[in-house]
Amino acid sequence: MILGRVLGTVVASRKSPRLEGGKFLLVEKIDPATMKGKKEYIVAIDGAGAGIHEIVFYATGSCGRYTDATEGKPSDATITAIVDAIEIDGDYVYNKATDA
Amino acid sequence: MILGRVLGTVVASRKSPRLEGGKFLLVEKIDPATMKGKKEYIVAIDGAGAGIHEIVFYATGSCGRYTDATEGKPSDATITAIVDAIEIDGDYVYNKATDA
Amino acid sequence: MILGRVLGTVVASRKSPRLEGGKFLLVEKIDPATMKGKKEYIVAIDGAGAGIHEIVFYATGSCGRYTDATEGKPSDATITAIVDAIEIDGDYVYNKATDA
Amino acid sequence: MILGRVLGTVVASRKSPRLEGGKFLLVEKIDPATMKGKKEYIVAIDGAGAGIHEIVFYATGSCGRYTDATEGKPSDATITAIVDAIEIDGDYVYNKATDA
Amino acid sequence: MILGRVLGTVVASRKSPRLEGGKFLLVEKIDPATMKGKKEYIVAIDGAGAGIHEIVFYATGSCGRYTDATEGKPSDATITAIVDAIEIDGDYVYNKATDA
Repeated sequence: MILGRVLGTVVASRKSPRLEGGKFLLVEKIDPATMKGKKEYIVAIDGAGAGIHEIVFYATGSCGRYTDATEGKPSDATITAIVDAIEIDGDYVYNKATDA
Repeated sequence: MILGRVLGTVVASRKSPRLEGGKFLLVEKIDPATMKGKKEYIVAIDGAGAGIHEIVFYATGSCGRYTDATEGKPSDATITAIVDAIEIDGDYVYNKATDA
Repeated sequence: MILGRVLGTVVASRKSPRLEGGKFLLVEKIDPATMKGKKEYIVAIDGAGAGIHEIVFYATGSCGRYTDATEGKPSDATITAIVDAIEIDGDYVYNKATDA
Repeated sequence: MILGRVLGTVVASRKSPRLEGGKFLLVEKIDPATMKGKKEYIVAIDGAGAGIHEIVFYATGSCGRYTDATEGKPSDATITAIVDAIEIDGDYVYNKATDA
Repeated sequence: MILGRVLGTVVASRKSPRLEGGKFLLVEKIDPATMKGKKEYIVAIDGAGAGIHEIVFYATGSCGRYTDATEGKPSDATITAIVDAIEIDGDYVYNKATDA
């Protein structure tokens, strides 16, 4: 899965009928070593109740369809988790409780 | 899903029989932070009724077959939505109604 | 799907039995804005009767198995169409009838 | 499969219900010629009992679901093996018994 | 499929049970125009009886499971053929009989 930050939303009224009900979020990939954005963006369907500015990870490819929120939907990028913390060698590089 | 702009069409009379009836569009990936083209191109099957110059997003991989327009077709890139607006932090970086 | 030019052939007598009967072509990806090769190469199974020098597009991933030529074959790159023309904003950037 | 080093853990309490019970590890891809990290990171589900600092390889895409640990889980990156040794031309470039 | 050269082997005693019996080879991608390595490496399961130094191609993604050697195994990279020759415009850029 790939780590990213939710930047905003994408609105699309004309779309494949199977996408109806999906919430499209604009996500920027991040580098967990620095927590900075990589200026690489993706549109993901929200499968975890994510909000703007939250750090998330998303599943790509066919795995994007393996969530309750996207079953049967052509989603190749689905947010599957909101990240609470990232720990490297016993140190938090990210801790939502204190950093957010 | 990946954001792109429809540039034109690709004509192919000799093709896999399963592609019959598909409309092939040339799409350039865009950077949503600037809305500029990234000079990376893909041929996508239209699954949303997209027209030239429109901002769209498309689904890749096996998800490309999960639309009414591409069921059973070997499409690894299918346009699944026409974008109305992209909003970052409450501001529109793209608004079809006013920008197009 | 990805645009490319057929450069030549790859011969492989020892191979997975399921690949028997497949024709392996060496394809160079092209940039449709300039029609120049990108020096990125792939081995694709021919699913469209392509010949050397022809401009084609190919399907990747699991879509590579969704053609009559590759059903049941482990092909992650299958040529699914021979390109006649590429049109951008009403102008031909490629027209096989006049360019080839 | 891709070679990497386990750097740490990712904690996520709000997630797709299908991910319950999965252990999320932060993995940095490595270059086996030098065994150095490539500063490219991925979140992988552990399917092999991996620990911090271990050299592993992981399976991507739909293969990520083809392990006992991830069956039915939307995992596009699953650690499927812990590496004991990497041998090039009869020489060990990595040998866990002596290097770790 | 992607062209590569077999460099060596990867030993992994602790692994997903479904990988039991698989032979893991370290493969470096090559550029067929020069036949030089690209310093990009992958661990592939051998599905063609490949040996060290041989030029091969491998299938990626779900296609990696579509060989007799990898059925049911989480292999996202499987060597499916040993290359005898690569021909561009009627000239051999690689001919195993004379080059190897």
